[in-house]
Parts: sequence; C-alpha cells; structure tokens
Amino acid sequence: MINYDDFLSSAAGQMQESAIRRMGTVLAQSRDIISFAPGYPAPETFPWEEFSTITRELLAGVDGSTLQYGPTRGYKPLLEAIAGIMAARGVNTSSDRLLVTTGSQQGLDLVARVMLDPGDVVLVELPTYTGAITAFRNVQASMVGVEQDADGVALEALDETWARLQREGRRVRMLYVVPNFQNPTGLLIGREKRTQLLHWAERRNVMLVEDDPYRELYFEDSATEADVRPIRADDASGRVVYLSSFSKTLAPGFRVAWIDAPPPLAAKFEMAKQAADLCTGALDQRVVYECCRRGILDRQLPLLRRHYQQKRDVMTQALGHEFGGEVSWPAPRGGFFLWATLPPQVDGETMIARAAANGVIYVAGEAFFVNGTGHNVIRLSFSAPSHEKIREGVARLAGTVCEELAATSAAAR
Amino acid sequence: MINYDDFLSSAAGQMQESAIRRMGTVLAQSRDIISFAPGYPAPETFPWEEFSTITRELLAGVDGSTLQYGPTRGYKPLLEAIAGIMAARGVNTSSDRLLVTTGSQQGLDLVARVMLDPGDVVLVELPTYTGAITAFRNVQASMVGVEQDADGVALEALDETWARLQREGRRVRMLYVVPNFQNPTGLLIGREKRTQLLHWAERRNVMLVEDDPYRELYFEDSATEADVRPIRADDASGRVVYLSSFSKTLAPGFRVAWIDAPPPLAAKFEMAKQAADLCTGALDQRVVYECCRRGILDRQLPLLRRHYQQKRDVMTQALGHEFGGEVSWPAPRGGFFLWATLPPQVDGETMIARAAANGVIYVAGEAFFVNGTGHNVIRLSFSAPSHEKIREGVARLAGTVCEELAATSAAAR
Repeated sequence: MINYDDFLSSAAGQMQESAIRRMGTVLAQSRDIISFAPGYPAPETFPWEEFSTITRELLAGVDGSTLQYGPTRGYKPLLEAIAGIMAARGVNTSSDRLLVTTGSQQGLDLVARVMLDPGDVVLVELPTYTGAITAFRNVQASMVGVEQDADGVALEALDETWARLQREGRRVRMLYVVPNFQNPTGLLIGREKRTQLLHWAERRNVMLVEDDPYRELYFEDSATEADVRPIRADDASGRVVYLSSFSKTLAPGFRVAWIDAPPPLAAKFEMAKQAADLCTGALDQRVVYECCRRGILDRQLPLLRRHYQQKRDVMTQALGHEFGGEVSWPAPRGGFFLWATLPPQVDGETMIARAAANGVIYVAGEAFFVNGTGHNVIRLSFSAPSHEKIREGVARLAGTVCEELAATSAAAR
Repeated sequence: MINYDDFLSSAAGQMQESAIRRMGTVLAQSRDIISFAPGYPAPETFPWEEFSTITRELLAGVDGSTLQYGPTRGYKPLLEAIAGIMAARGVNTSSDRLLVTTGSQQGLDLVARVMLDPGDVVLVELPTYTGAITAFRNVQASMVGVEQDADGVALEALDETWARLQREGRRVRMLYVVPNFQNPTGLLIGREKRTQLLHWAERRNVMLVEDDPYRELYFEDSATEADVRPIRADDASGRVVYLSSFSKTLAPGFRVAWIDAPPPLAAKFEMAKQAADLCTGALDQRVVYECCRRGILDRQLPLLRRHYQQKRDVMTQALGHEFGGEVSWPAPRGGFFLWATLPPQVDGETMIARAAANGVIYVAGEAFFVNGTGHNVIRLSFSAPSHEKIREGVARLAGTVCEELAATSAAAR
C-alpha cells in the first residue's frame, strides 16, 4: 500500500473541501431539497436564443481559430470589449493591463500565486468570499480578518490591524475586498470609504485587490451606479488589482472573466496562466464577445437587476413573515446574497443536517470567517430559486430553526 | 512609482514566458509567416457540423445546468464516457479516480501543486514538454533530466540519476513521462520498457506521471494500438497518475481533458481545482460528452490518423528533398512533431530572427531541455499547416539554415 500523504505538497496537506461546493454534494443526494447554498445565477434569465444564434454562426467553420488554442491574454476583440466595459465603469485601461481569466476564481488564484509567498499576510474582510480564502490558503498565505461596519470594512480596525502586524514584524502584502454586494454579506462599501481605502493602501504600501463580480446587479430601489463605482476608477498610482466577470451577467458556464492590473503584474499573471491552463476556452470567449458587440449584455443588465431585486423582496418578505424578529439581516441592495443572523444559541454548521432533512440548505457562516467566528450566521442565496421555492424554502428553514432551538434548549436543561 | 518586484512571490520572480507562446507573438506580427511552432491540431479536421448541431440542441434552454456552474469533478455523464475511453485503452478506473481538467495543462498544474514542494525533485525526459517544465517550475520544483534512447527514457541513466540524487540526500518525488509520440521528439517508449519503468517506480518509491495527449494519433504504417498501451493499464498498485485530453482528438478550444489518479490524490486534485477555477466550462463538457455518446469521436480517430500521417509524409519528404543529409530526425510514428537536429554550428534560438524574416518559425530546442542543452535541435509541428505550406515552409527553413551556416562560417573566419 502506498501512503499518498508522503507524496503531498505542504500546500496540499492544508487543502480543504469548499463549504459551498460540499453543499453541492448534499444537494445531489436528494431532488426535493431547496437550495439557498450556491450563488448560482437564474438560468431562466440567460439569453438562450441569442447564445444559440451566436454559436451557430461561430461554428459555421469559416474561422478555424474559433476552436483552436488562443493567446493566453485572451481573444483580442474580447479584450477590447472589456476595455469598453471598464470605461463605462469609469476606469481607463489598456491592453497591457488586461487578461481574460477562466472565471474570476482563476483570477484570484493567479493573484495568490503571483503575489503571495507562504506566510505572507493578506488582510480580508470578516467575513469574506470563501473562494478567495481557498486561493490564498492554497499558497499558504496568512489571512488576517478585519471587521466590517454597515458600509464595509472598518477603517480604524484596518489600520490598527496593520500596525499590530507591523509591530510583530509581519508585512502586509495586500488587502482583499469585495466592495459591491459582498459575498457573503451583501454589503456595499460606502462612496467616501472607497477613496479612504485607496489612500490607506497608498500610505501603508499595501496592494488593494478589488473583486467585483456583482456590481452590475444593483437594485434600483436602494442603489445607483454611483454607489458601485470601482475603487480602481480613482486609482492613478497603480495600487489596485481589479477583477470582474461575465458569470453573473451572461452565464457562469462560459467561465469568462478578467483581471485589470498594473502592466508588470499583468505580465506575470499571463505567465502564471500559461502554466495554469494555456488559455481560456476559445468558443466561450467568442460567444461572450458577440454578446458584448451585439448589445445583448447591455440589454440583459436592467432585466437582471429587476429579476434579482424581486427575488430579494420575496426572500425578505418570507423571512419577516416566518421569523418575526428572531432573525436579522442587512438589507441587500444588490447581488445574490442575504446574510442572516440566527439566535445566538443556534450553530449554522450543526443545523445543516436537520435543514437538509427538512429539505432546505444554505452555507454556514463559519466558512467565510478566517478567525473561526460566525457560528450563528448563514448565507442565503436568493438568486436561483423561483419565488415559490424561496417562500417554501424559508418556511422550511423557519421550521428547522424552531426545531433546533427546541433541541438546544432541551439539551441545556 | 510602485516597485512591483516588492509584491511578487518568489515563484513569480522565476516565472518565464513560454517559448512556444512567444512564437505566437512573433506570428501575430506578420501574416505571411508559415508556422511550425505551436502544436495546433488542424481545424479542417474538426467536425464543425456535428459541433453546431450539438450546441444548437444543448442551447435550446431546456436544461439550465448547460450554462451553470457545475461540479468540480466534472459533468457526470462525461466522467462516465471517460471511464469508457479508459477501458478501451486497457485501463480499469472508477469515478473516485477521475477529474475533468481545463485542458491537460491544468492537469499538470494540479499535479505540480498537489504533489510538489519547492526544491522537490522531478525527473523528466531530456528533452520534455515545456508546459510541464513551466508547471513544475512555477511551484519551484527542481527538475533533473534523464537522457532518452530511441525507445524513450534510458533506464540505466534513470536509475543512476536516482541513485546520485539519493546519495546527495535529495528525494525524487516523481518521474514525468510522455510515452506516446512525445512532445517534442515524437518518440514512443517501447512496450517492454513501459513495464520496466513501472517496476522501477515501484522499486524506488517514485510516483509516475504519465502524460498521454497523443496516443490516439498513431500512424498505421509504423505503430499499432498495442504500441500505445498506457503504462497505467498495468498499474495495479496505484503508482501512476495518468493525464489525457480531447484537445487533439476533438478541438483544443473546448479546454476539456482529464486526470486519472489514485483516489486520495484525485481528492486533493479536486480541492486544488476548486481554488483554481471552480469547474471546467459547462457547455464545453457537454459538447465533448455528446461527441462521445454519438460516436463522433470514434469516427474522427481513423480520419485524424490518416490526416496527420500524410502531413508527416509531406514534411519528411520535403526535409529529405531540401536538406539531404544535413538534418536528421527520428521518424515520427504518430503525433504532431518532428524533432530535427541541425548541423552542430547552428543555434536554433539564434536562428529564429532569420527564420522569421524568411517567413517560417519553429520552436528552438533549448526550451525543452532542463539542463541547458539542445542548441542545435528544433521542434517542427507538421499538424496544422497545409501540404503546400509544409513544403514551402521547409524550403524557407532550408534557405535559412543555409544562410545561417554561411554567416557562422564567415564569423568563424
């Protein structure tokens, strides 16, 4: 018998299964489960007909490069379209700064591999996106969490954390933030705070990694385009690495996203990507490009904003109806997620088995915290299920919490 | 001004641009260049109509998961189809051993990240595939080369290298081989030697990484299916990690490949892939699956064998015609590559500028050697260009070598 532990890298020794992906396994075991777990976009919003027309045209066989290996940086017309999207977001960019990635997850992975050595410190929000935690953990970086206020990462705590680490002789390499409708909290970093964060990063010589997949999905009843202006838009000194994606606005199955970074870093991301997957899917990139060129993406955005805003309404109404004041959450002003705080005696991770038995799943909050807290918070995605399923799922969740409370109080007696 | 070197990981400090990908940049600068550089499959062989029919059916919008995030392991029906392909290759496998990867390049990257720490020793063939060199280099592994005989890696040299490293206190973690129509030499590891390699790996407690993208492309005039039997087929003890791909048999633009590995390693590859890109493209995987299910892949294979065999013939005839005895090569019995040894005074890397000026490019051999040798060998891919372009390209190459010889002998005087 071979002991494979002898053949694992020290990074692999620390690798863990993603909490979100694990819920996929739970889901696959039963058909009747209503899932609030993964942040899946709603497939009924995808422009299927347009995708079909575009691929038929692309696969006519006129241009062999449609299914060939392509440049690591990305399909050139798509890169130009992305530069246009960036301009619309207030960001001036150029071809030496842009790289297409195989989903934003690859972007995070490239950031980790190019910018972090084992033990290097990354500051992250408490809580933060699990995919970033995994990417940083896989290069054995050291993550230190900073608390959030209602308008995002707390500036005072941020600088105190930096100063404490500095005193301990640990250099902070980067700050990772998701400023728009953060995964998992749904929070938005305030307008002024964005500028303050940029100045802070400059003052402390820290790189700022801005992960921005949800910005187009602001809900018009409570946020405007001005609220989601990227930090990168005001970055004149090359302090920001910016990531965004087509996964939430077109479809995640294409795995097309991008990084915008200062040219010396973009060049290294390209080299790292050469070894990671050579290039992003050729057909996928062309479909996405055609959606940009033909105005399909632009037409989708207002529809998506309304679609997800309605689902948010259905979920918050159902939560209010089922739970009364027992559960609280910051009102999502965009994006896919609602971050629910349960009664303090309920542990979200422990409750999963009961929830699944009752036909509903979510992601327990703990996975999003790098400091081991978050036991009584859970992430609920309202993006994928239908209105009816959202209502039914919230009812099942309420029943589950009720049972859990009864069980914990019985155990306490 | 920010000094970005301060923000690079030590791995990133060592990252280099791929020699093959660099040729893509040279190519993009001129339209008239005939490229023998990248190992591109011939797009005129792609089953365009079938791809078009399949995607039209898939994009009818009936199944939302067609464009959704999917399981990290891969699309389940595709995994089952892959198990069938493996069985046809003489390999018994199971779902806990298989993982779909975003091209085999991702497979190599996962192998590197999960199985290698900085400084760990990987034995590789001299020469070997540059993409593997890059993946291993990016985790700061130490690569040690082993010479090849006409039937692949030299067993005596292999064990001597192992013993020398052992004496130096350096543990060899893995041996990386491309047994079928190796990139770049086109060599085939002999049938007996495959068994011997497996026994050697067992005796020396070394993992064997078998990279097998070209095996279906054996040329029927000089190789049979028995010649390309995977080493993995005789591996009863879990010593082999096996990689293969649909890039050369269907199309590389889909980025669909796979790893077969002992379950504990496959589980770690899955975790590493979660952080690397979450999942491989959903539509891409479904198109590839449908090509398996509908028998399209099976119909393609004999066509591809004949197509590339003819191109090999055109290239070897042109080389014989243009060069006489000045240039030599092992006759390719399959795959995409011809490995040409030039007169000793010619440096393939130096000659690239002259070759590009004359309208032909290739990959200089040096990039494939981890020991700094290979100055007068070059890799010529005969897979993509038309017969006419192959003839014209070889003529241009002959003219280039002629000029280079004249220039070097003039410089020597």
